[in-house]
Amino acid sequence: MPELRKDPVLGRWVIIASERERRPSDFPAEKEPPSPPPGACPFCEGSEGKTPPEIAAFRPGGGPPNSPGWTVRVVPNKYPALRVEGGLDKKGDGIYDRMNGIGAHEVLIETGRHARSLTDVSPEQAAEVVRAYQERLLDLRRDRRLVYGLVFKNVGATAGASLEHTHSQLIATPTVPRTPADEIAGARRYYDYRGRCIYCDMWLQEVQSGSRVVIETSAHVAFAPYAPRFAFELWVLPKNHASDFGTISPAERADLGRVLREALRRLETSLSRPPYNYVLHTAPFDAPELPHYHWHIEVIPRITKVAGFEWGTGFYINPVPPERAAAYLREAVPEARGA
Amino acid sequence: MPELRKDPVLGRWVIIASERERRPSDFPAEKEPPSPPPGACPFCEGSEGKTPPEIAAFRPGGGPPNSPGWTVRVVPNKYPALRVEGGLDKKGDGIYDRMNGIGAHEVLIETGRHARSLTDVSPEQAAEVVRAYQERLLDLRRDRRLVYGLVFKNVGATAGASLEHTHSQLIATPTVPRTPADEIAGARRYYDYRGRCIYCDMWLQEVQSGSRVVIETSAHVAFAPYAPRFAFELWVLPKNHASDFGTISPAERADLGRVLREALRRLETSLSRPPYNYVLHTAPFDAPELPHYHWHIEVIPRITKVAGFEWGTGFYINPVPPERAAAYLREAVPEARGA
Repeated sequence: MPELRKDPVLGRWVIIASERERRPSDFPAEKEPPSPPPGACPFCEGSEGKTPPEIAAFRPGGGPPNSPGWTVRVVPNKYPALRVEGGLDKKGDGIYDRMNGIGAHEVLIETGRHARSLTDVSPEQAAEVVRAYQERLLDLRRDRRLVYGLVFKNVGATAGASLEHTHSQLIATPTVPRTPADEIAGARRYYDYRGRCIYCDMWLQEVQSGSRVVIETSAHVAFAPYAPRFAFELWVLPKNHASDFGTISPAERADLGRVLREALRRLETSLSRPPYNYVLHTAPFDAPELPHYHWHIEVIPRITKVAGFEWGTGFYINPVPPERAAAYLREAVPEARGA
Repeated sequence: MPELRKDPVLGRWVIIASERERRPSDFPAEKEPPSPPPGACPFCEGSEGKTPPEIAAFRPGGGPPNSPGWTVRVVPNKYPALRVEGGLDKKGDGIYDRMNGIGAHEVLIETGRHARSLTDVSPEQAAEVVRAYQERLLDLRRDRRLVYGLVFKNVGATAGASLEHTHSQLIATPTVPRTPADEIAGARRYYDYRGRCIYCDMWLQEVQSGSRVVIETSAHVAFAPYAPRFAFELWVLPKNHASDFGTISPAERADLGRVLREALRRLETSLSRPPYNYVLHTAPFDAPELPHYHWHIEVIPRITKVAGFEWGTGFYINPVPPERAAAYLREAVPEARGA
């Protein structure tokens, strides 16, 4: 019997279609285009002139901008979805509303060496990538026109990636987008009713039941959510309550780098390097620390199709129960459950 | 300068990335798998035994079920996402909620002749397909466990189709899905403020401005919406206010069949038979006629990628302004604007 499950934050239902259940090997590997010839990748160390001038970089040994010697480098997107310069110019058009496409669109290059995945860098380097997320979000919020920043990652052509070299992106917008706004509103309803953060309750229940947990450390839990939209969807939550990712400590960054890299490694091993996206959900720039919201990362493998039913309803059909997905991911690599 | 536009019903923003603008020919045609050999398609007339027993069929000359002689035939989906038999058995699981996957999942075969598209059948036959949508929705609402029915269509592998023979699907669910619920709530807010149906206001403004209109008849308007998620997205609205698609008259069905077929023909001509989905949004089964809601069809070509930013925010990046898309679609075929 298929099962309907409700996401407790968004009220979004999913169909766990266990009669259509598929194993990891049932998902075909994606054919990726061949790697660029040596020297042709604009994100490699030594090719700094092939990107727009950098916004920020970590250079442990010092050195001028746009030169080699960096560990993480942040540049403007060459084809930005939003533009930094100008005013919002909000206007009506009959019943409609519009404004100028003001915002930031940055690319965070995660290593100078040509690597395809965050799993190809060291855990320490992954923690540096996490630090770059934090520093860019803290910097962008000083622009009063911008109210939200989304860090995200596209891996594989199906997931929207156009370059192979491992990188993340950050888009900051002049309105709070619908999805984080809906999450915050849903979490607020729970808080008003129960007086507790729903995400705190969620990771506690996950750790207690254990069936959906993939990795647990002292600071983070990576688990398959109860009502996942996508097969092998994974969420990473910090155990410490915090709505603002900007407050993450150096020790938490180190742990998150390890956990995120390990979660991706398990996905890549189980599913033969699937296309995926991940997104970092945090509070809006101008929100005080919220007792009801909790930053987190959502990893969504792009191995199941989104068709008319999903677009028309917001309902998702998922052929892999999260308990099964978590079991596959726990068994994917020889190490014990703690990363 | 990119532009941010807001969907007036859902409050969803999109980025019209005119600096990334693409023409129809910039979207590569999808490679579709070869057609099945003659006699192998389970949806062709004469192969009735290859599907589960039919639920309904139009047989103008009469004849027994599951025999040839039909124009439109409705069968259960062989791999249903939801099951008809059983009780809902709603239960909690700690902070989570679940119920059994009860519902209907039907396939509407749009012609007995092997055809790839609704545009390959006559306008009269397209109107019969519309009649099948209406009759199945009216029949399913008699099941008191079910509260919503979504008619949808997947065309092309990218859009989730697994069979080539032109068909639609209908899934009826025991909860009102999030997207129509959000639409109804958004339309209600507008009605409470202005005392008018937002969709009535929308088609009127579209017809007055004209720049986004593709087809206008006495009963329907097909237009590129102001804030489209997808390049070449099209909506079809009836001019007569009605929240319930079940109330559509025979004359309106005939007109809708013509308009829908013509809209798809223009998309197929402009974009070389792109993969697409369409969905029919109507009121929940148990809603009385609502003054604030208005049934409609949304057609979404699947030619742009949905990546991390879209999944993380609900914001969409669209490289084709709807005014340009409508102009391309108006010019796509020699006929005048009225279908």
